[in-house]
Amino acid sequence: MRSVNIGLIGAGTIGGGVIDLIDRNGKLIFDRTGIKLFLKKVCDKDTKRLATFKSLKKSQFTSDHREILNDKDIDIVIELIGGINPAKEMVLKALGAGKHVVTANKALLSDSWDEIFDTALKNKVFVNFEASVGGAIPIIRCLKESFVTNNLELVYGILNGTTNFILTMMDECGYSFDEALKIAQSKGIAEKNPALDISGGDSAQKLAIILILGFGVKVSPKDIFTEGIENITPLDIQYAKNWGYVIKLLAIAKRKAKELQLRVHPALIPGHHLLSGVKGEDNAVFVRGDFIGDSLLYGKGAGSWPTASSVVSDVVDIAKHVVSHGERSPATHILRTRRESFTFHEHDSFDIPYYLRFSVIDKPGVLAKISTILARNNISIERMYQEVRKEGQSVPLVMLTHNAVEGNMKKAISEIDKIDVVTDKTVVIRIEE
Amino acid sequence: MRSVNIGLIGAGTIGGGVIDLIDRNGKLIFDRTGIKLFLKKVCDKDTKRLATFKSLKKSQFTSDHREILNDKDIDIVIELIGGINPAKEMVLKALGAGKHVVTANKALLSDSWDEIFDTALKNKVFVNFEASVGGAIPIIRCLKESFVTNNLELVYGILNGTTNFILTMMDECGYSFDEALKIAQSKGIAEKNPALDISGGDSAQKLAIILILGFGVKVSPKDIFTEGIENITPLDIQYAKNWGYVIKLLAIAKRKAKELQLRVHPALIPGHHLLSGVKGEDNAVFVRGDFIGDSLLYGKGAGSWPTASSVVSDVVDIAKHVVSHGERSPATHILRTRRESFTFHEHDSFDIPYYLRFSVIDKPGVLAKISTILARNNISIERMYQEVRKEGQSVPLVMLTHNAVEGNMKKAISEIDKIDVVTDKTVVIRIEE
Repeated sequence: MRSVNIGLIGAGTIGGGVIDLIDRNGKLIFDRTGIKLFLKKVCDKDTKRLATFKSLKKSQFTSDHREILNDKDIDIVIELIGGINPAKEMVLKALGAGKHVVTANKALLSDSWDEIFDTALKNKVFVNFEASVGGAIPIIRCLKESFVTNNLELVYGILNGTTNFILTMMDECGYSFDEALKIAQSKGIAEKNPALDISGGDSAQKLAIILILGFGVKVSPKDIFTEGIENITPLDIQYAKNWGYVIKLLAIAKRKAKELQLRVHPALIPGHHLLSGVKGEDNAVFVRGDFIGDSLLYGKGAGSWPTASSVVSDVVDIAKHVVSHGERSPATHILRTRRESFTFHEHDSFDIPYYLRFSVIDKPGVLAKISTILARNNISIERMYQEVRKEGQSVPLVMLTHNAVEGNMKKAISEIDKIDVVTDKTVVIRIEE
Repeated sequence: MRSVNIGLIGAGTIGGGVIDLIDRNGKLIFDRTGIKLFLKKVCDKDTKRLATFKSLKKSQFTSDHREILNDKDIDIVIELIGGINPAKEMVLKALGAGKHVVTANKALLSDSWDEIFDTALKNKVFVNFEASVGGAIPIIRCLKESFVTNNLELVYGILNGTTNFILTMMDECGYSFDEALKIAQSKGIAEKNPALDISGGDSAQKLAIILILGFGVKVSPKDIFTEGIENITPLDIQYAKNWGYVIKLLAIAKRKAKELQLRVHPALIPGHHLLSGVKGEDNAVFVRGDFIGDSLLYGKGAGSWPTASSVVSDVVDIAKHVVSHGERSPATHILRTRRESFTFHEHDSFDIPYYLRFSVIDKPGVLAKISTILARNNISIERMYQEVRKEGQSVPLVMLTHNAVEGNMKKAISEIDKIDVVTDKTVVIRIEE
């Protein structure tokens, strides 16, 4: 049986893992599946870096991606350079040349889904993308195959390793957000410019991919309500813990009949929920479907080897078809999720419980003022805790509310923040039970 | 595009779920995949039961499975009658007739794997079996596809819903084993004859299937060291909890280079481990691989709808091939895991920590006698707790040990159980950190 020839574009962290994996476990994969993988060409701008991989021969190096796109013997192109451009052009050219594509590029997929899959369909080739969401976690395969029989009701994802690492450090060591971020950067877990992770933008891109597969709906990440973790403090993590909660950055999709609620934000979740045990860089996806009930997939959300594992499993998947049916594949194998029509829940009408932390000078009447404003906006208090008074100093006043409408909450908080004895912006964190 | 015709043999709990699923979500599956599933014939001895399914017409009923096996228009046979005979004959006949098979039958697969897959290979048809392990949990697909790139190091499975339900009831409500079993039976969670579940035999069958896919090794369930939960008491669960542990029935496969350790038994696991949060009928599989690192799949381990979800996802998987490539499929698609050669760790040489509960009349010198015997067998005590003395009455003496060799432990316990002030058989439970 012939080898399946692979062209790898991008030999950075994940690409390096792919080279390692094929070197170390190529024989194992052959024994298990009968598939012989051959890395015919590896492209990276930094050819010195390429020379550090001992399993590669010089003849396999290139700094010109066209050598891969124009090579008639290459069956599968792995794109691992990330970002929309120039990755998009390379992927489209590869597909146009009848090559299958494996990518981990969440930015590209959430931006240009239709263009990419239309091109793939026209050329009868596959695009696989397990590594685009959740690193080693097989969430894409599960949504496409295992859960395809289900009407999904709920997805909760911890989809960003950087923010989960930062929140874990703040929780377990009491670090401030800035301190935890610096540690994450020094360990290579956060990038120099961590904005996309911290702001929740990365999670929103991943949620957009989950939405297409799980709900048959295409939403631009920009249109998903997104809030980052910049304003979470160790104080809030501690208060939450005292009441049995953990704070996690969640990507949420909730369906009620034909209405979808989509949001990415930090949330208090109960300490007994399986997601609360997801620590450090790990990721997890909780899925509720009408037939499967509750399901959780947990694993390494990032890193060279775990992500490479997903990339190569995608390659093996396609390689089976290449070997059995020749290069091209019948169109029916292409993902053909029909778009479903949903209405989207306006985020001002989200009806959920909240954690509130007011900073107040504890003078008589403060609580009365705050609670009057809350009551006027239909917000009722479930639990309350106030730190011991310190004469003339600002102290935290912490509350959990019952379900409240987001629009009302906004109005109430903007009123409360204008009270003279309220010394700082009120901290508002949503709760998911 | 033509419908894919299905013959269902066995309309019990899971079969009923399959009928429900195709009725309720058939259109959804079509929208997502382009696959039209048609239940051409449903066979059950109890045709009155068949009449209760409103989505079935009388022309779809039969009490004779040959009507399915001989129907040339049926592409896929779903076998859900369970047990080795007569299921085996039906499956082999279906394969021989060129029909693909989907089954949930762990007893059959763990017994007759080679015969079934050789027959499938010869006839170029598929056998899918996601529902045979872990209900709705996509562990089979993950082992076959997602983790195929990994050299696995460790699998911990909570694979039996009945025993996990019983242990949870004992833990949370303090019920005895017998009481918890009765409740499980009254809820339909345990069978009238619960021996296969309680004894760990069901978990061993499932572990045998995991071993083939995850480690490329075929082991008869009978050859897996197996201990059930019959002797677990609420007292032990409580003592374990005081030290931060939870007791779960685990199916374990541990690899060290080319040596495999296989066992099914109740074990103390740390309360912070994700598996400790798996409650009631739920199942979970923890997998450690060289590239993925640690991974967990969690979900409903049993029940009509969750198991049916896995069955129908297997059907959809095959249906894609039927529609694209005609009925038969190329041999390469068949699972062709080459057998790997492992040596098996003799269970007398397991080297693990233990929980011990002695029942002793607390006279001076008892502890000295017990600890001398332990020391002589190279067993050192990590922690100890003794209940307050009750004059002349038997009290529990509880210990956690450091790693100890199973053979030594057996010798020590048989000596200790002969001491006159030891009033009852010592309880020995293994610990997995």
